[in-house]
Amino acid sequence: MCQLLGLNCATPTDATFSFTGFRERGGNTDHHADGWGIAFFEGKGLRLFLDHESAAQSPMAQFLQAYPLKSRNIVAHVRKATVGEVALENAHPFVRELWGRQWVFAHNGDLKDYEPKLHSHFRPVGTTDSERAFCWLMQELHKSHAGLPSVRELTATLRELIPQVTRFGNFNFLLSNGEALWAHCSTNLHWLVRQHPFALATLKDCDWTVDFATMNQPGDRAAVIVTTPLTSNEQWTAFQPNELKVFVDGLPLE
Amino acid sequence: MCQLLGLNCATPTDATFSFTGFRERGGNTDHHADGWGIAFFEGKGLRLFLDHESAAQSPMAQFLQAYPLKSRNIVAHVRKATVGEVALENAHPFVRELWGRQWVFAHNGDLKDYEPKLHSHFRPVGTTDSERAFCWLMQELHKSHAGLPSVRELTATLRELIPQVTRFGNFNFLLSNGEALWAHCSTNLHWLVRQHPFALATLKDCDWTVDFATMNQPGDRAAVIVTTPLTSNEQWTAFQPNELKVFVDGLPLE
Repeated sequence: MCQLLGLNCATPTDATFSFTGFRERGGNTDHHADGWGIAFFEGKGLRLFLDHESAAQSPMAQFLQAYPLKSRNIVAHVRKATVGEVALENAHPFVRELWGRQWVFAHNGDLKDYEPKLHSHFRPVGTTDSERAFCWLMQELHKSHAGLPSVRELTATLRELIPQVTRFGNFNFLLSNGEALWAHCSTNLHWLVRQHPFALATLKDCDWTVDFATMNQPGDRAAVIVTTPLTSNEQWTAFQPNELKVFVDGLPLE
Repeated sequence: MCQLLGLNCATPTDATFSFTGFRERGGNTDHHADGWGIAFFEGKGLRLFLDHESAAQSPMAQFLQAYPLKSRNIVAHVRKATVGEVALENAHPFVRELWGRQWVFAHNGDLKDYEPKLHSHFRPVGTTDSERAFCWLMQELHKSHAGLPSVRELTATLRELIPQVTRFGNFNFLLSNGEALWAHCSTNLHWLVRQHPFALATLKDCDWTVDFATMNQPGDRAAVIVTTPLTSNEQWTAFQPNELKVFVDGLPLE
């Protein structure tokens, strides 16, 4: 099993606070020490950092904490290997290009005996069930639309596709194309929106409190999606089982 | 115009020495200050670092210099923007998945009025002629082979494809799938092999001499391919115009 972290923001935001708590789960406060990764969209461009070391010990994670990258869509993952060996090609998030956009995917859960028909051009590089599921989603999205559809159309297609995966097991995932962030819960996923009036937040996984009011402008807004709540004094909402939400500009799209 | 650096090695090798000289060309000793990137294969896995800042000033380049990653196939690029704005999605190397392998591509040269028919599933994310050429190469390789062919077969296919691009302009490029590194020269590309008995090397772009004999074992071997020679006291061989070479295990394949 693994843990997921996603941010979808109205304005470019750095993830330092949330990532600092989250990376502790990669070996310190939790046992997800078999690799980690984080992807930052910058417009249509993407920066992806992958490591098969533990996030808590990784010099690269340390560097990113000291050198904040601002992004409107961020997807991060700490891994506890269950299917697929500990190797760089098995580290999430995974990336593929579709319709001239980068797509980023991270998964938490196990899909048992999941061998989808990958008859198109999205093939797994590694050996995880997660990357197979991602390749299948990309293949089916590609078959369903001739070009990049609207976020609402994509969401409708995903709602049709997801049940074909969930019958193999737990499929908590984050997916982004830099425009929107989709979050699906099978078992465990929480979210909140940080916006004006901003308040204090205290991390659960390490000793750090910030006052977001001093760091943000009124137009700033960030939706944070995470496996288990990152802070002790913010109102996190649990996803329902089988709930898919899509976030745009820091808000869930109704 | 841009500059290219590639390493193909018999054993996992860190690129610190060569990258240190090379990154100086990204804004200090040369004017390629509109972004940079470097890709490190680790088995089938890939670490890609992209930045639209100058390589000479970039904190991320500084970090990589202090935190050497070992790899058998490395492709790096410093960019002087000519076609396509300075944006992260226009930074080389570009990456696509084909046949369950990652493919990495970096280009130096201008392709005039180059608008290939991209009727398949490889689409550019950014606006460079380079990424269009890479998408076209991936598309045509995919059409030519049902699955991953041998390095020799791939080389033969590339020899057929490249002339269809070079009539639009200069097409110096590096391409790797983690197994081999292909290097094509239109105008300017040099290479050498560092192997036993290892010798001293002194960078041209900054004041640094290393004795590779103290850092390597007899079985180590690295082919280095670069736009213009990195060192003043090694024997660099210039590519011929329109020459394609492929490197495997640190040696050119004859």
